[in-house]
Amino acid sequence: MPNLRLALSQIDPWVGDIARNSDEVVHWTRKAAEAGAQLVAFPELMLTGYPVEDLALRRSFVEASRTALVELAERLAAEGLGELPVVVGYLGRSEQDVPRAGRPAGSPQNCAAVLHRGTVANRFAKHYLPNYGVFDEYRYFVPGNQLSVLRLHGVDVALAICEDIWQDGGRVAAAREAGAGLLLSINGSPYERNKDDVRLELVARRAAEAGCPLVYLNMVGAQDELIFDGDSLVVAADGEVLARGPKFEESLLILDLNLPAATSDQTDGLLLSDGLRLVRTDLGGEPLPAPAERVTPGIAPEVGDEAEIYQALVTGTRAYVRKNGFKSVLIGLSGGIDSALVATIAVDAVGAENVHCVSMPSRYSSQHSRDDAAELAERTGLNFRTVSIAPMFDAYMESLGLTGLAEENLQSRLRGTMLMAISNQEGHIVLAPGNKSELAVGYSTLYGDSVGAYGPIKDVYKSLLFRLASWRNEEAVRRGETPPIPENTISKPPSAELRPDQVDTDSLPDYDLLDTVLDLYVEGDQGRDAIVAAGFDPELVDRIVRLVDTAEYKRRQYPPGPKISVKGFGRDRRLPITNRWRRG
Amino acid sequence: MPNLRLALSQIDPWVGDIARNSDEVVHWTRKAAEAGAQLVAFPELMLTGYPVEDLALRRSFVEASRTALVELAERLAAEGLGELPVVVGYLGRSEQDVPRAGRPAGSPQNCAAVLHRGTVANRFAKHYLPNYGVFDEYRYFVPGNQLSVLRLHGVDVALAICEDIWQDGGRVAAAREAGAGLLLSINGSPYERNKDDVRLELVARRAAEAGCPLVYLNMVGAQDELIFDGDSLVVAADGEVLARGPKFEESLLILDLNLPAATSDQTDGLLLSDGLRLVRTDLGGEPLPAPAERVTPGIAPEVGDEAEIYQALVTGTRAYVRKNGFKSVLIGLSGGIDSALVATIAVDAVGAENVHCVSMPSRYSSQHSRDDAAELAERTGLNFRTVSIAPMFDAYMESLGLTGLAEENLQSRLRGTMLMAISNQEGHIVLAPGNKSELAVGYSTLYGDSVGAYGPIKDVYKSLLFRLASWRNEEAVRRGETPPIPENTISKPPSAELRPDQVDTDSLPDYDLLDTVLDLYVEGDQGRDAIVAAGFDPELVDRIVRLVDTAEYKRRQYPPGPKISVKGFGRDRRLPITNRWRRG
Repeated sequence: MPNLRLALSQIDPWVGDIARNSDEVVHWTRKAAEAGAQLVAFPELMLTGYPVEDLALRRSFVEASRTALVELAERLAAEGLGELPVVVGYLGRSEQDVPRAGRPAGSPQNCAAVLHRGTVANRFAKHYLPNYGVFDEYRYFVPGNQLSVLRLHGVDVALAICEDIWQDGGRVAAAREAGAGLLLSINGSPYERNKDDVRLELVARRAAEAGCPLVYLNMVGAQDELIFDGDSLVVAADGEVLARGPKFEESLLILDLNLPAATSDQTDGLLLSDGLRLVRTDLGGEPLPAPAERVTPGIAPEVGDEAEIYQALVTGTRAYVRKNGFKSVLIGLSGGIDSALVATIAVDAVGAENVHCVSMPSRYSSQHSRDDAAELAERTGLNFRTVSIAPMFDAYMESLGLTGLAEENLQSRLRGTMLMAISNQEGHIVLAPGNKSELAVGYSTLYGDSVGAYGPIKDVYKSLLFRLASWRNEEAVRRGETPPIPENTISKPPSAELRPDQVDTDSLPDYDLLDTVLDLYVEGDQGRDAIVAAGFDPELVDRIVRLVDTAEYKRRQYPPGPKISVKGFGRDRRLPITNRWRRG
Repeated sequence: MPNLRLALSQIDPWVGDIARNSDEVVHWTRKAAEAGAQLVAFPELMLTGYPVEDLALRRSFVEASRTALVELAERLAAEGLGELPVVVGYLGRSEQDVPRAGRPAGSPQNCAAVLHRGTVANRFAKHYLPNYGVFDEYRYFVPGNQLSVLRLHGVDVALAICEDIWQDGGRVAAAREAGAGLLLSINGSPYERNKDDVRLELVARRAAEAGCPLVYLNMVGAQDELIFDGDSLVVAADGEVLARGPKFEESLLILDLNLPAATSDQTDGLLLSDGLRLVRTDLGGEPLPAPAERVTPGIAPEVGDEAEIYQALVTGTRAYVRKNGFKSVLIGLSGGIDSALVATIAVDAVGAENVHCVSMPSRYSSQHSRDDAAELAERTGLNFRTVSIAPMFDAYMESLGLTGLAEENLQSRLRGTMLMAISNQEGHIVLAPGNKSELAVGYSTLYGDSVGAYGPIKDVYKSLLFRLASWRNEEAVRRGETPPIPENTISKPPSAELRPDQVDTDSLPDYDLLDTVLDLYVEGDQGRDAIVAAGFDPELVDRIVRLVDTAEYKRRQYPPGPKISVKGFGRDRRLPITNRWRRG
């Protein structure tokens, strides 16, 4: 059986920055060539970044991507890398650009190309378009109907893009029909909790269906709300995991694969499963024997649930800060668990020297809160200052004589204004400390604690937050470092401290109970009656459902944050604001 | 030719409030029966309101709609209205609920039903699903493949839902094949500038294609960002406009139509165009002669562009305030044109007695601004007060020593906090005064002038704003009323008044020029090079394009507002935040 040495570039493209992304392709292709690879692959929509959203509908952007692809092929050859075939995702369009109702104008396509010897040797478009959850690909793309098969060093390599292998039939079935020796799928598959297990099971199943090894190359990094965890996989037809990339890290995976020799003499245009037409490209090269020393990246070790989620949050935060052109962040530090975890994530994402925190006490702030905030700063080495909101508070109260909720919210808003003033003056990006439990029930202040450009824990339930904080402290102990989060911050009862002796349970159920019901209603999409039937107090369920339904506007105004669950409160969750649906 | 008396209920359903919407159907059906109608029609998704967005994916909500439909049929009969057939939109699901990749779970459908004699006599689902602009119907619905034809008093009435007639073929072609004497389409067709002309042309063309009169019944009112203008149409096969409903007003249109006698003897299940299957329902009734006095609602007069847009903004604002359960609004009144127009719209939407305005002068506020604000209040009779932001400003400056943009933004944020404090204390909903030109280039302060639950003019370019203000004043003169907006507010150069002698043109190009370029870039989706080629200064175009591209986050955090253009800055415009695309 011939050998192929593959290079899988598990990297992080930047949306819209085509020049930067082209540079990256050249950079990693050179590394692949140096490692002796015979084929190098890059993620879905590598040239434009992913997801481009409505940029796909802008014709000049599509043309910029198409032009950059041709220039990239020429540049690779000019830089002596032309002999190494490069599989790379780009934004293209259908040559049959027939305006048709219900089809995006200009017929944009989610494409991949094979660059070789200075030219675009093959190009094709994604066949199955996902249109659920965070995906809107029926809005942006027209599907492709071609199965591309590369013959390279005596091996037939069939190509696919992401959703192509998530649905039955399609390119997986067609790859078997074409007698492919390898199926290579390039992906921009967003992270979700436990998705790694789902992906492994899927890739193994599809490898069996294709009857050949399946290479699943994923993107890594983050873009707006989406996190890409990498976790690229190579699985044999019998289900054996041959390689697995690291999570949340850029990496070039080099591996030798012993593959069946190509024997098919099918001709171009043959009709395969799902209306796919075969298009073969012969890239040449003699069949190669297995090298004396086979290279493999091995199988990256599994990590626990808390470790994985925490890394996802750090990845999302780092990417958002950097890709928006910021170096430093600003956080209001209350001494409570939410802002403490946000600060810890920020320290891990951008370094303590780039994290600026402000304690903004009011007359209702407890001494222990101030002490806990200061202690976290001391343990982590982040920049810390204290500015009282008392004078501003007094000025408003004298003018307006506020009471109750108006007085409570005022304190939160004065802090928001303080953070934005320091941000504008010093150039840090503000991180918002809200968690998913609070956002679900609207327990936050618009323009107050919701101020910020990014909310690192907005998709983390409060009960999970405690587990993450404890895990992070234990991890520090394992590494022989100081645990960053003061024990008192984790153990004391949560309080907004906006009136004397306030605690969260004055307004909300116990968080473990709240989060359980929220999980059924939000993630599980279960109706009120079904939740009550599961054994929860009807009055409690009604209260929670009412709170969730009426907090839609607040959630929509909340900054974006890293999505770690299937149903985060992000832009993919589309509900009417004037949502009077109560019994759902 | 037999006669049919139709009743078209051009009304405003409330999203999610199925009980209220059912009551409305009974209420308007009774009116239709009293007017002697033989068939009454209600808009698309009448029972649930439109659009329901992700509520369609919640199974308990779909079941609530289906149950309510059956109960409504029974209730109509119980209240003596069972003999009058009712065509009504509801949220249903496919009986073939086969889970399939790429298909919404539970197979929800955008349905319509015919209620008659206490039962659901016919039900069918929308065939063509729009999936562009504000529409995401591939995400929510599976298509229907049935052409429903009612035989009623000797006339065959074919039924359609909205997009069914916006695309070629489909139910329009099938209606002709079925020999229908009338094609009735129920709609939830959002308002856009000049869409009335497009609709009329479309309906006339489709009537010709169907070979029979076409009834186009539209919703009226507003939901979140969408406005529904009504403007229901009845057009004969030869293009003659037989009736046209009013714009932006609930109305029951009663009209007699002389229609071809039904002759078809096609059987159920016949395969028509686009895979549609014929399903006939015989509702009985003898053919009726034309009545001695034919009833017609006539043709509502056309209105000018400014009048139409202004009415749209008032409609959107009124619906948003009411449907969110508020009675009164709060606006920061600066004396400038933006807040003046917002206040005028609010007065027209909810009445002067429910409009509360605050002047919040700082050391940089001019006397003429304060005077202009006070004069607008006097002319309109709205509630007016003045609260200085000086003491709060001094408190912050003493603590933080801000300069430049940080100092400017601080003033805006102190006003935002002031408005929210008053809103929390007194219960008014805050309206934000930002216009489309500002939002496009990011010339606004996050948590400052962007504070509010709704932005009535967020889709109005500054240059159009001046025209609307002048039109509103002229309209007052025509009605013999006091023009609401002080002339000085319209004639003075726009200024944010956040530093001494500041005017908008310090930071921005002249608004007429800016708006022309924005229109090419935003509405026209033209690239930078195309705009320069059209004769604009390359440096200016680069600057505007850069501003628009980098202001995405601010725009996304802005409150919703009434959408009057194809490309408003609403939730339907989906762009990455970290959008480094510059040349597009």
